Amino acid sequence: MEKFQVHILGCGSALPTTRHFSSSQVINLREKLFMIDCGEGAQLQLRKSKLKFSRLNHIFISHLHGDHVFGLIGLISTFGLLGRTAELHIFSPAGLEKLFSPLMDFFCYKLPFKVIFHEFSSAESVIIFEDRTVEVHTIPLSHRLPCCGFLFKEKKLPNHLKRDMADFYRVSMSHYNLIKNGADFTTDEGEVIPNERLTIPSYDPRSYAYCSDTRYVPKIIPLIDGVNLLFHEATFDDNDIARAKETYHSTATQAAMIARDAHVGRLIIGHFSARYEDETPLLNEAQQTFQDTLLAYENMCIDV
Amino acid sequence: MEKFQVHILGCGSALPTTRHFSSSQVINLREKLFMIDCGEGAQLQLRKSKLKFSRLNHIFISHLHGDHVFGLIGLISTFGLLGRTAELHIFSPAGLEKLFSPLMDFFCYKLPFKVIFHEFSSAESVIIFEDRTVEVHTIPLSHRLPCCGFLFKEKKLPNHLKRDMADFYRVSMSHYNLIKNGADFTTDEGEVIPNERLTIPSYDPRSYAYCSDTRYVPKIIPLIDGVNLLFHEATFDDNDIARAKETYHSTATQAAMIARDAHVGRLIIGHFSARYEDETPLLNEAQQTFQDTLLAYENMCIDV
Repeated sequence: MEKFQVHILGCGSALPTTRHFSSSQVINLREKLFMIDCGEGAQLQLRKSKLKFSRLNHIFISHLHGDHVFGLIGLISTFGLLGRTAELHIFSPAGLEKLFSPLMDFFCYKLPFKVIFHEFSSAESVIIFEDRTVEVHTIPLSHRLPCCGFLFKEKKLPNHLKRDMADFYRVSMSHYNLIKNGADFTTDEGEVIPNERLTIPSYDPRSYAYCSDTRYVPKIIPLIDGVNLLFHEATFDDNDIARAKETYHSTATQAAMIARDAHVGRLIIGHFSARYEDETPLLNEAQQTFQDTLLAYENMCIDV
Repeated sequence: MEKFQVHILGCGSALPTTRHFSSSQVINLREKLFMIDCGEGAQLQLRKSKLKFSRLNHIFISHLHGDHVFGLIGLISTFGLLGRTAELHIFSPAGLEKLFSPLMDFFCYKLPFKVIFHEFSSAESVIIFEDRTVEVHTIPLSHRLPCCGFLFKEKKLPNHLKRDMADFYRVSMSHYNLIKNGADFTTDEGEVIPNERLTIPSYDPRSYAYCSDTRYVPKIIPLIDGVNLLFHEATFDDNDIARAKETYHSTATQAAMIARDAHVGRLIIGHFSARYEDETPLLNEAQQTFQDTLLAYENMCIDV
C-alpha cells in the first residue's frame, strides 16, 4: 500500500508545557505533505520529523486560536529563506489572511513564492481540496469560534492489470489505463472480457479524520463513519467534564464515544490540557469505551 | 554577591535547526527577569529554564527581524492564560506595536494585563530603562534595519554598615541609610567620623552587554568598555567574511576583536548560522584573538 501516515508535531493545548508543543500535524500521503494546524514551534518539530519542507504545499487551519496558528509566520518566513518558489495554499476559517498579511509584508519582504489563502465557512461540510490522490472535507465542529476538523479521504487507486491475461487477450497498451480504471475489454473477435478477469482490485482507499477543538458533537458521526483513523481532542478527563463543556472541549470518554459510534478503526486522542503531568488516566478512560485508542505524543508517526 | 545571570534560550540565527532555537535570552538580576529578544519558541525555552514567568516584566527587542520577535505573541498569550495582571513593558525600535496590536486584539481577547510598548531610536545610545538595581542602555549597531544591542549596568549597592563601629560612635538607626550611601557621621561631640571607618564598600557593580545582530562596528567599543560579560553575535567564521559583510553580520574573529579592544571580562558568541553543524571552529577562531571566549548553547546559564 502507498504511504499514508500522520506525524504528530504537537499535541498540547493552549498552554505549552515542557512535554507538549501546541497543535500541529503533518499527513504524508504518497510523499505529499499536508499540514493540519500550525502552533508555535511547528517548524522546529517539522525539522525534527525529517520530512521535506519542499513537499509541503497545503496547510489546513482548524480555527483561529493562537495555539493553532502562531507557528505560521515563522514557517512562511523559513520557506522564504529556503528559497521556496512553489505556491503555498492555506485553508482556514475567515480572517487569517487579514491578520497575517501585514506580518508577511513586513517580516517576509520579497517572499519568493505566493501564499494563497482559501477561507471556508464552517456552516456545513464541504470539499475544500482535491487532487489525484485525496479529497479533503471539512468537519464542522462546535468550539468558541468557527472551527472545522478535516477528513482526508484517499482516492481509489487504479486496479492492477493482470499482465498475463492482458497478453492472452492481446490488449494493446493504449487500453491499459481504461482497463485499470474499470473498463471491460472487447477483443478483435467481438468477445467482451469483463474487467474483473483482467485486473486485481486495488486496496480500499483509506481515510483519516482530525477533530479538534470541539465539544462533544454527535452530529459529526455520519461524516466520519468508518474512517481508518480518527484524531479526536480529549483536552480533559471525565472529572473535568464541566470544565470541558464550559470551554468547548471534550473529555477522553466523549472522544471514545465518537470513535465507537462512528465505527472508526483506531482513535488517537490529543490536545491535552497542561494540568495533566501524565495522560495515562485519559487513555484508560477512553479505552473503557473504545479499546483501540492511542495517546498522541510529539514526533509520533502512525500509519492510517 | 547578588544574582546576575544570563540564560540563553536560543542562539541560532534566522533558520532554526534541530540544535538551535532563534534568539532569546533572559537576564536574572537579583530575581528580576529581563528578556532580550523573543524568537519563536522563547516561551517553551523559558518554561524549560524553570524561571518564573511572573518575574518577567520587561522585554527588550533588538530589531524587527522575525527570528527575534516571532515568539512574542505566544508569550503574551500565555501570560494572559496564566492570569497575569502586572504590566508588561516591551522596548523595541519603532514599528512593533503597530504590527502586534492587531494580533493581540484578535488572539489575546480580554488580556488581563496591559502591554506597554516603548519604542526607541537607534541613532545614539540612550538609557531606556532604570530602576533601583539596573540601568539599561542601548548600543546602536549596524544591521540591515534599525538595531540596538543592550547594556545592563548593575547599580552600586549601598555599603555595608560596620555594626560594631556604629554602636561605638552611637549612630542612631535613622542615620544608617545615609551612611550606607556614603555620608560621614558627626557625633554629639562634633567629631566627624569618616564614612570609610563606618562601612565596608559593597562589591563593584557588574555589567553585561548584548550585541546582536550586527556587522563589525568598532564604534561600539567605548560603550561596552570593561563589561564583565559580552554576548556578541558570530554568525559566520572567517571563511565567510564576505557573506558576513553582505548580510550585516559578524565573524567569530570580529566578535573577539570587539571583546579584546573593549577589555571585556568574558565573551560569549552566538547567533550561529545554520550552516555549521558544530561551532567548535568558531570558538577556536575567536579564542585566537580573545582567549576567554565561550560558545552559547541552549539552556546555558552563565554568571555575569
